[in-house]
Amino acid sequence: MDKIPFALIGAGVIGQVHARNIAAHRHARLRWVIDVDPVRGKSLAEAHGAKFSASVDEMLEDAAVQVVVIGSSTDVHEAHLLASVRAGKAVLCEKPIADSLDRAKNCLDAARAAGVIAAVGFNRRFDVHHRAVFDRVRAGEIGAVESVHIVSRSSDASPPAAAHRAGGMLREKGTHFYDLACWMAGSEPVEVYAAGGCLFDPEYAAFGDVDTAALTLRFASGALATFSFSRRTNYGYDEMIEVFGSKGMLESQRQRFPTWYERFAPTYLAELDALIAAVRAGIPMSPSLADGMRAQAVAEAAVASLAQGRPVGIADLWSAA
Amino acid sequence: MDKIPFALIGAGVIGQVHARNIAAHRHARLRWVIDVDPVRGKSLAEAHGAKFSASVDEMLEDAAVQVVVIGSSTDVHEAHLLASVRAGKAVLCEKPIADSLDRAKNCLDAARAAGVIAAVGFNRRFDVHHRAVFDRVRAGEIGAVESVHIVSRSSDASPPAAAHRAGGMLREKGTHFYDLACWMAGSEPVEVYAAGGCLFDPEYAAFGDVDTAALTLRFASGALATFSFSRRTNYGYDEMIEVFGSKGMLESQRQRFPTWYERFAPTYLAELDALIAAVRAGIPMSPSLADGMRAQAVAEAAVASLAQGRPVGIADLWSAA
Amino acid sequence: MDKIPFALIGAGVIGQVHARNIAAHRHARLRWVIDVDPVRGKSLAEAHGAKFSASVDEMLEDAAVQVVVIGSSTDVHEAHLLASVRAGKAVLCEKPIADSLDRAKNCLDAARAAGVIAAVGFNRRFDVHHRAVFDRVRAGEIGAVESVHIVSRSSDASPPAAAHRAGGMLREKGTHFYDLACWMAGSEPVEVYAAGGCLFDPEYAAFGDVDTAALTLRFASGALATFSFSRRTNYGYDEMIEVFGSKGMLESQRQRFPTWYERFAPTYLAELDALIAAVRAGIPMSPSLADGMRAQAVAEAAVASLAQGRPVGIADLWSAA
Amino acid sequence: MDKIPFALIGAGVIGQVHARNIAAHRHARLRWVIDVDPVRGKSLAEAHGAKFSASVDEMLEDAAVQVVVIGSSTDVHEAHLLASVRAGKAVLCEKPIADSLDRAKNCLDAARAAGVIAAVGFNRRFDVHHRAVFDRVRAGEIGAVESVHIVSRSSDASPPAAAHRAGGMLREKGTHFYDLACWMAGSEPVEVYAAGGCLFDPEYAAFGDVDTAALTLRFASGALATFSFSRRTNYGYDEMIEVFGSKGMLESQRQRFPTWYERFAPTYLAELDALIAAVRAGIPMSPSLADGMRAQAVAEAAVASLAQGRPVGIADLWSAA
Repeated sequence: MDKIPFALIGAGVIGQVHARNIAAHRHARLRWVIDVDPVRGKSLAEAHGAKFSASVDEMLEDAAVQVVVIGSSTDVHEAHLLASVRAGKAVLCEKPIADSLDRAKNCLDAARAAGVIAAVGFNRRFDVHHRAVFDRVRAGEIGAVESVHIVSRSSDASPPAAAHRAGGMLREKGTHFYDLACWMAGSEPVEVYAAGGCLFDPEYAAFGDVDTAALTLRFASGALATFSFSRRTNYGYDEMIEVFGSKGMLESQRQRFPTWYERFAPTYLAELDALIAAVRAGIPMSPSLADGMRAQAVAEAAVASLAQGRPVGIADLWSAA
Repeated sequence: MDKIPFALIGAGVIGQVHARNIAAHRHARLRWVIDVDPVRGKSLAEAHGAKFSASVDEMLEDAAVQVVVIGSSTDVHEAHLLASVRAGKAVLCEKPIADSLDRAKNCLDAARAAGVIAAVGFNRRFDVHHRAVFDRVRAGEIGAVESVHIVSRSSDASPPAAAHRAGGMLREKGTHFYDLACWMAGSEPVEVYAAGGCLFDPEYAAFGDVDTAALTLRFASGALATFSFSRRTNYGYDEMIEVFGSKGMLESQRQRFPTWYERFAPTYLAELDALIAAVRAGIPMSPSLADGMRAQAVAEAAVASLAQGRPVGIADLWSAA
Repeated sequence: MDKIPFALIGAGVIGQVHARNIAAHRHARLRWVIDVDPVRGKSLAEAHGAKFSASVDEMLEDAAVQVVVIGSSTDVHEAHLLASVRAGKAVLCEKPIADSLDRAKNCLDAARAAGVIAAVGFNRRFDVHHRAVFDRVRAGEIGAVESVHIVSRSSDASPPAAAHRAGGMLREKGTHFYDLACWMAGSEPVEVYAAGGCLFDPEYAAFGDVDTAALTLRFASGALATFSFSRRTNYGYDEMIEVFGSKGMLESQRQRFPTWYERFAPTYLAELDALIAAVRAGIPMSPSLADGMRAQAVAEAAVASLAQGRPVGIADLWSAA
Repeated sequence: MDKIPFALIGAGVIGQVHARNIAAHRHARLRWVIDVDPVRGKSLAEAHGAKFSASVDEMLEDAAVQVVVIGSSTDVHEAHLLASVRAGKAVLCEKPIADSLDRAKNCLDAARAAGVIAAVGFNRRFDVHHRAVFDRVRAGEIGAVESVHIVSRSSDASPPAAAHRAGGMLREKGTHFYDLACWMAGSEPVEVYAAGGCLFDPEYAAFGDVDTAALTLRFASGALATFSFSRRTNYGYDEMIEVFGSKGMLESQRQRFPTWYERFAPTYLAELDALIAAVRAGIPMSPSLADGMRAQAVAEAAVASLAQGRPVGIADLWSAA
């Protein structure tokens, strides 16, 4: 069976993780690495026997490429995604899909029009503990989901300026967890309320950001999710999920890891397996671009809620249709 | 050392617990049981060698009585408490102190004017697991408290009409947990947001009540508490507390018990020990009436928040002064 | 890609699980069902579009068959395994490999001589929670393994006579967990001590069996494993693993499931995936027949230890060579 | 009510804890500090307004002294305990009672003959989490106890020579946990098997000691306890207890603390409360000297088991009579 040729756009931290996984996968090979920085781009390409180019277009003209993994900076996600799907390539785009909801919607529309497989990089869905809970929820073990509680506390705080460039905590960190909550609840998000503040570093406030937050998300089913976020702990990365339903309760319990990376490194492999399986079978991959846009809509509503001090509806920002 | 003479007002479920504990205590004796229902009142009095009266006044004229435990129905709490403190008795009043904040304030003022020990029946503060966490928080082990998360899920749902008479879930259940959150946070509550709905029994809605709720409470310190409430589980009573701070995280982990009573029965004994120790030493007891009024103010704000769909401030309802 | 043709020997409870999984797998198809009972054998074969035969030989003459799954009764495992590997088929044999260590050794030798893939059905190795711990142990996260603790408590007690026919608790239940301990410890077992008794059902004693046991297993590395077994709980199936090492501790925490089946059903699918991957790649599968024989040797030593009231060495029963 | 006059023998680490607690207790006062080292003895005495003497006899002649806390070195425990009880004082003796079982038996006999309250310093019985489990076990919540599992892992390894002087791990650490297991099981210990080794520090072997151990203890009821001990972790002090019975399972879950002292400091206060309550009421205190001797007998049998590689009976060493 032939190996599926991949291209990777972006040779940064996550790009390097993807490159290593693709190159090592028995059903994939890394054909291209694209980066604006030729030094780090070439270096990564050479390390894995791939070709380097600074030009996305040059890569997209290569008919052999079947899948493009987009790990570039957020401001060029839209351009890279649109070009890739229009060239008929399957895509896996790191979150967020684009730097505004309108642009994300463009991406979603273009991928649908092109009829290609288009996935978003919500790798946490592939964590074995989270997935074991999800499988049991979907199997009906706890009946109807009534509430979800998610904790995510980073091990080390991002510097305020970098955190701001990444969208702020309610976007950068939050998007992963809004998606997990929607996935577990099996329902569309309707309204979000975000409270937060700078409890340990007032510098975040200068960027309109927070270091600590508590959110409530209401779903169309009536289910309620709560989120407790912090930018740092003194005991390593802390993440847990609790799902309560009419017939029981399930937990994806906290695990001890120094940082998120040790905990989630295996999820990138499982994500790649799922992507390859979808490409081979010609079926959609989950989490999809639509999943990515839904979570992004929740993030925008959460940011508005924090600024306005009231719950904000999501319907105007997002529709599953 | 003489045993302290107690009077008990109210021979219902909680009254019976108190009667048994007082009668069995090596430093207390039960001198009076008061109840509007002479059958159950006499029966309880006789069981513990106490006198019965239907009249609170008759009991208060007994100069020997040092402590009055008020477990009557909420609508007469104020009358019983005012009369007791004005008669110079120490009081332990089951929550809520009164059926409105104004009446609760009357009680608080009267107790202060009388200079008596006045405590509220927040028995959960005496749970060994909760207290072990509190002691460690107060000892500075986790630094400044930044967030608190509390789960409380009853084992069996109260019938909607009875639940309504008891004040609805955000008052009846909630008050205990707003107090625990304030106690752990060590700060005054500032604003609360409540979301909720009827996920399994629409009958609650007919009374303006809910069966499932998620709340966010902000403190003056900036700390945030989240609450996840449900009226029933299929796996027994479920309660846990997590406190996160600048230097660590502590949990009062879930314990397996069929109903709240099995879990919290020992707390009534510990509460009585604390009350007796305060009376003997002539020092205030914690939790105090002021603690009770604070939690009641949060409850009223939460009810308003649920009705109005927005966060509600607590400052107009409550001041520690 | 062609689907791999499977044959299944044994149409009992586990055979039915395998049949359903093989028939539903995208890379496998069920070609034969073999059973001594033509009624249940034919019924299972028809349900999945397979051929039925009462004769293992007839099936083995079918050159198309690549993999044989052996789920027959233990007393005929050896015959079925020897015939299958001599016919050049890959095999997955439910544990125990055979009803004596000598016969198990025959099987191991024959499979090695035939050069076929030969696996044992230690499905718990495919549990996501156990495997997540194993992966982290193997990645060196907790350094050298120093101790392992395993709890396994069945939800419902097997009747004593049936339990005896299945080999008794130290064999039937134990084998899975000796294997998990060896897997986690990454070292060969050297000596075992078993204590046990009939704490709730004296009937087991009539068969020389127990309902409760505690075992200690020493490894060549010096690491020590302890096991706590019970035949029943009143709270569902209970299994957990704790691995302690020089640099930390990891837990595969208890999960709430009514019986072992709900917890481990997914492991049979993952086991099948691994078997198919091994067959396609032409590489050995883990857990192998040798893993099965190792655990069986520990079981025999444990039975001897229980009978003799002293620790028993494993070296005379098993050598990895 | 008068404060009870205490004397403290031994001004070392634990002696200092006791001195502070006694001096601060509302119902106790510290009248004497005795130590062979006049510098540290006087310093401790002065810090708490007590008298100092190097002579136990001088202190025992003081008729005002009601309670003697013995925290001297083990080799003089017997002399101090015999003199104290013969002088009619109540005693709390740190474990072990004496440096041999015969001497411990002398102490037990003398205390019984003197008719005084005689307690052993098994402070862990006063840990709130352990005690909550014990109370529930004794209340019959989990029916008959069938198995107990205890983990104790020190945060930092004692140097081998000091560890040897303290009796080695199976005595020094073990005694606390044999007592907890007996307490939870509610049955007399019958036989113990100990396995162990030097997994991280071969120096212990030079003293016949180990750094890692696994033990199995059988009770007269048939219940089985397992113990998993280590001399160090890299994640703080680790202790947990699990009790399994015919009707359920209870856990005293692990708590995060840097060392044993942070976790168990409050137990010394609770132990003192219990001692004072016993002295005032004139009733025996639990844990008693007999509890101390029972655990010491298990320790001696465990040491013999480790040396001989076989289970060792306890009946010849200990009888509750």
